[in-house]
Amino acid sequence: MAARLRDLGIECGRLPAGAHNAITDVAGVRVGHATLISGEGPLFEGIGPVRTGVTAILPHDGNIFREKVAAAVHTVNGFGKAAGFEQIRTRGTIETPILLTNTLNVGLVSDALTTVILRQNPDIGVTTGTVNPVVGECNDSFLNDIRGRHVREHHVWRAIESAAGGVVAEGNVGAGTGTACFQFKGGIGTASRVAIDGRYTVGTLVQTNFGAREEMTMYGVPLGCHLSSELLPQPGPGSIMMVLATDAPLDARQLTRLAMRAPLALGRTGTTSHDGSGDFVIAFSTANRWPHVPSDVIEPTTRFMEDSRSMDALFLAAVESIEEAIWNSLIAAETMTGRDGNTLHAIPHDEVIRWFKHYRRLE
Amino acid sequence: MAARLRDLGIECGRLPAGAHNAITDVAGVRVGHATLISGEGPLFEGIGPVRTGVTAILPHDGNIFREKVAAAVHTVNGFGKAAGFEQIRTRGTIETPILLTNTLNVGLVSDALTTVILRQNPDIGVTTGTVNPVVGECNDSFLNDIRGRHVREHHVWRAIESAAGGVVAEGNVGAGTGTACFQFKGGIGTASRVAIDGRYTVGTLVQTNFGAREEMTMYGVPLGCHLSSELLPQPGPGSIMMVLATDAPLDARQLTRLAMRAPLALGRTGTTSHDGSGDFVIAFSTANRWPHVPSDVIEPTTRFMEDSRSMDALFLAAVESIEEAIWNSLIAAETMTGRDGNTLHAIPHDEVIRWFKHYRRLE
Amino acid sequence: MAARLRDLGIECGRLPAGAHNAITDVAGVRVGHATLISGEGPLFEGIGPVRTGVTAILPHDGNIFREKVAAAVHTVNGFGKAAGFEQIRTRGTIETPILLTNTLNVGLVSDALTTVILRQNPDIGVTTGTVNPVVGECNDSFLNDIRGRHVREHHVWRAIESAAGGVVAEGNVGAGTGTACFQFKGGIGTASRVAIDGRYTVGTLVQTNFGAREEMTMYGVPLGCHLSSELLPQPGPGSIMMVLATDAPLDARQLTRLAMRAPLALGRTGTTSHDGSGDFVIAFSTANRWPHVPSDVIEPTTRFMEDSRSMDALFLAAVESIEEAIWNSLIAAETMTGRDGNTLHAIPHDEVIRWFKHYRRLE
Amino acid sequence: MAARLRDLGIECGRLPAGAHNAITDVAGVRVGHATLISGEGPLFEGIGPVRTGVTAILPHDGNIFREKVAAAVHTVNGFGKAAGFEQIRTRGTIETPILLTNTLNVGLVSDALTTVILRQNPDIGVTTGTVNPVVGECNDSFLNDIRGRHVREHHVWRAIESAAGGVVAEGNVGAGTGTACFQFKGGIGTASRVAIDGRYTVGTLVQTNFGAREEMTMYGVPLGCHLSSELLPQPGPGSIMMVLATDAPLDARQLTRLAMRAPLALGRTGTTSHDGSGDFVIAFSTANRWPHVPSDVIEPTTRFMEDSRSMDALFLAAVESIEEAIWNSLIAAETMTGRDGNTLHAIPHDEVIRWFKHYRRLE
Repeated sequence: MAARLRDLGIECGRLPAGAHNAITDVAGVRVGHATLISGEGPLFEGIGPVRTGVTAILPHDGNIFREKVAAAVHTVNGFGKAAGFEQIRTRGTIETPILLTNTLNVGLVSDALTTVILRQNPDIGVTTGTVNPVVGECNDSFLNDIRGRHVREHHVWRAIESAAGGVVAEGNVGAGTGTACFQFKGGIGTASRVAIDGRYTVGTLVQTNFGAREEMTMYGVPLGCHLSSELLPQPGPGSIMMVLATDAPLDARQLTRLAMRAPLALGRTGTTSHDGSGDFVIAFSTANRWPHVPSDVIEPTTRFMEDSRSMDALFLAAVESIEEAIWNSLIAAETMTGRDGNTLHAIPHDEVIRWFKHYRRLE
Repeated sequence: MAARLRDLGIECGRLPAGAHNAITDVAGVRVGHATLISGEGPLFEGIGPVRTGVTAILPHDGNIFREKVAAAVHTVNGFGKAAGFEQIRTRGTIETPILLTNTLNVGLVSDALTTVILRQNPDIGVTTGTVNPVVGECNDSFLNDIRGRHVREHHVWRAIESAAGGVVAEGNVGAGTGTACFQFKGGIGTASRVAIDGRYTVGTLVQTNFGAREEMTMYGVPLGCHLSSELLPQPGPGSIMMVLATDAPLDARQLTRLAMRAPLALGRTGTTSHDGSGDFVIAFSTANRWPHVPSDVIEPTTRFMEDSRSMDALFLAAVESIEEAIWNSLIAAETMTGRDGNTLHAIPHDEVIRWFKHYRRLE
Repeated sequence: MAARLRDLGIECGRLPAGAHNAITDVAGVRVGHATLISGEGPLFEGIGPVRTGVTAILPHDGNIFREKVAAAVHTVNGFGKAAGFEQIRTRGTIETPILLTNTLNVGLVSDALTTVILRQNPDIGVTTGTVNPVVGECNDSFLNDIRGRHVREHHVWRAIESAAGGVVAEGNVGAGTGTACFQFKGGIGTASRVAIDGRYTVGTLVQTNFGAREEMTMYGVPLGCHLSSELLPQPGPGSIMMVLATDAPLDARQLTRLAMRAPLALGRTGTTSHDGSGDFVIAFSTANRWPHVPSDVIEPTTRFMEDSRSMDALFLAAVESIEEAIWNSLIAAETMTGRDGNTLHAIPHDEVIRWFKHYRRLE
Repeated sequence: MAARLRDLGIECGRLPAGAHNAITDVAGVRVGHATLISGEGPLFEGIGPVRTGVTAILPHDGNIFREKVAAAVHTVNGFGKAAGFEQIRTRGTIETPILLTNTLNVGLVSDALTTVILRQNPDIGVTTGTVNPVVGECNDSFLNDIRGRHVREHHVWRAIESAAGGVVAEGNVGAGTGTACFQFKGGIGTASRVAIDGRYTVGTLVQTNFGAREEMTMYGVPLGCHLSSELLPQPGPGSIMMVLATDAPLDARQLTRLAMRAPLALGRTGTTSHDGSGDFVIAFSTANRWPHVPSDVIEPTTRFMEDSRSMDALFLAAVESIEEAIWNSLIAAETMTGRDGNTLHAIPHDEVIRWFKHYRRLE
């Protein structure tokens, strides 16, 4: 089991975390990974080395196409290829699992996700409409033969079928297998927060691939200045995918507001969201489902009243869980060497602790 | 050669058309189609009947990834799966051909387009960043085995490699092979307008799949009321993809404004842009290219001064060319029978003429 | 009582209108005008001639700040000075009457509206937050001493206090006193539609000041071509303010979708939404109110299920009511001469009828 | 002369500041304030106490209406009443000075700004179009009789006429007279950064009125935790207005991207952008002016090539200058008592230094 930020003794914000400090603390949400690691040495396109994967986030246990969840997206910096955003903006719902993968695999993964949903719903494209696959991505080409597009349909099946609640694997897994964070090895991270007298949970899962070393700041500790002596790789333009889940009954507009807190979390880490970055947020609520075929024109529901105090509590939960999920991705990741011998180093945990102590943020 | 609206003697707006009354009147723009028609009778998923295809619009003759074009998108109603929009919004450029296909084939076509660009640019994913494939779609499932996702990589290659200037095939071709327009057979249509003393051209290509018969209005003639006795099929929710090209040196913001005229053109046809419609606009200018690697921080260029008179002229050119392109798609299309014997009828040209005469819009 | 479009015998769409064919058919909605007409002859800034006013739309009978209504805005072309849009976009509510006036009076009218709300709510700015005045505008400078900013606080009071349900005055009243429509005299117009088996009403009120004569098209009849011999004035850049009300329980995202139908209605009239046009939509629902101070974090409510059929019905209601409201503003308006002897002519009703007959749209 | 952050010896980022470390380091930009302080004790609406004002930012020395500057806006959280945003979004230009004031004074200040521009341009509203006043605001009601709307036309004149380059007054001046920052006294702050080998400057001016004490983090030092023992006032919902200027030839889309860095700067300070916050950014470039009446349809210009390195440099300049401007507003502000004896305390500089030393961020 990989280390997490809290294992280092670091304090992480003001709100309490959920039971697993993971997106799966939002009841019903499940996460699965398919991790692809094979080959070493020089790059042979289509052969390897392969350091990539796919991660699936399932909003609930049922047929998501039949029981859509309220959803929103926000683009912090749109230099990326995320799929499915237009329909989410218009209809305010997500109707598939959310998949994360590498940049050049978005097409194949979208297609594979379409296959999954078609099999579950034989009426799509025959007696009912079509389906909107939602896929995010980061560029793992520093370690991975990204041109080879090694993520195939069976990997997508595997990620979805292995999805489970509870503890979520972090670091070099799934879509985070080959990614970087502040020019260290990054990957998948997750965290959660409980807010409003324990009534609601906000959980986050991130795929980190962003950040310049020099700007790196962890809970105020300017690690980037001190860890710059580490041999710096030259990774391509970075990105971060952020998936937010909540059981608070937010509608699509309110979820958009939640998603718009993401740059405030990113700001805490010191980054400025680079020009070449695809920094996207996908947010959903499990509370109010939208049936594919409603039984009547109107229906009773529950709405979140958007009192400043309660909204601010969810905003803080979003910011803190994104922030900690990022650091979890970094702390959990292990050094990895990939194509052409390129290496992304794990952040040395003792150095983190040393500088936290130096700056008196840790006893 | 299929008929066009003007062959019926109908007047089409106030601005003159370009030489071919096609998107290819914008110098350098090329269009290619791959049309897939096979099988008859009952639907066997993965087998057929197949009534679909892919259409490619190439902004210029060079390497588009290396020489990007200024671009913008606008979503009239976002119930659709168009790919590549986020990066266009942020970076204001398009760096691939624009492909149109069927809804469930967006994943495979994105992947195939990625392959095309990777082959042309061996540095992508190795020493430079990634690429943003731009793909639009309509749902042709009424005639087509859409679940079979019959558009494959070689069809994408064929559409791109066959792309040419000059006359553009319309109707049941490429991505329009299986689509509907006002519950008649629709497909691909194109048109162009010349504005501002002949200085600039605006060209449009559409993939029509939208509209309820009863609302259909052609240049003010309420055809939908009169042609309602035709046996009406029950197609799924419709959509329209609209691609606008111009050689006026518009920047991305100005192209957004041009794209935002699309609903005004749609309004002229009587539609209200239905809930289930993916109505998207992609607009680009061939005038000011953005190199993948600029040689300096700044560079001289030409800007369009946004005088109300000149901007309005381009707006009118956009509206008139979209409107006529829609009708060209309808007039050119021929009756087609597809899966399960479903049939979309060609609009009877004599009926169009009859009602134009009845309403004294034609002698 | 001014004439309305239906008085000419013209058919106006497929959906039935409400009892008054006015925005006031949405229960609880009230409209009031203050009309300012004084002076003749040459322009003396600050003196006159004055041809302007203010129109107030009240979403319900109560304290709107205390009981906010769900709301949305959409900008078709944003060359305008509408106030209050940012907060509507973020919070999804309107908390004041909606006021319409002339372009240069937006500041004073916002201030006067603030005064109105402050008087009703002594806690604002002391023990609770502030208030977001919502004001729209058109440029009536062709007839009006717009630089004089003649609309003052007492006019705002008068418009609000005189607001009533039932029949709404149209044409040269309130904010429409000095405005143009297709270079004829325009002004205030209203209309409504009943949809979904009579369950819901959509009502529209417009302040028209847009359109070039040559593009004018009424229900498909190209009036602009034929009425071009009328002496054309040279009005400044036009605009249209569109206010949509409904009693369907739409949330802010759904209201945005409704508002986005406005350009489709404008398209039917032949306009292309000019560069210099401030074409804005404000939409609200009276069904689900948001209390200023909620009693709990969540609350039961009713949601509109966004079935394609029901959503499309509301879209059609919005398009038809905007379209007819525009023509009502034109038909009701009477010839007016203003500053420097400038004249905007009423559209000749007999000419409208003549061309409707010519084109066989009227017996 | 009030203290600035650097006077405390605190290091402020990686990029060098301009000559005055102020928005006025962007050549031609001028700033002026009118500060209103009068009365003490209990609130009498319309009388006082008055603790408010207006701040003017002038993009250049000429007639701004005649020579507009490229501009963009971004809304981080739109619970605010900022005026003029719609036209900036559509036309990509600003044509007036930018004014900041208190929330309830936006109407009167917009009107006064209109007056200023009308006097400079006698053709507005007679032979040319109208003008789009740009006004931002914060809620200073904790100290100020905000209901009294004490900012009047002559204050606007004074702010504009006193505008000058060079050193900019900070803290309790102009629109910052009565505002709060992390529940200390806030106000006006400014800073600048020079980027891309000294070629371009980015300058920022902020009006701070945001932040909860507990979240306050200055360059990583968690001041908010330690300074919480200070008597906390109960201010209303906060906000921040951020004005960015640059001499880099960015177009409106690129300026939007710059403006979108603002939440990343806010994130560094620990805030989450509260529900009740009006957090707005206005960004402009002085490099490429847009004449009110262009002489031809096209014109040569210079464009910024959007290379990742150069864009990232401007992004960092924006983030660092916003961050430092915020702290300058706080450090410069002095304790102020206003209506009903309410007091906002200046942050104790020695405490700042003490905690910077404690956390080894200062020797």
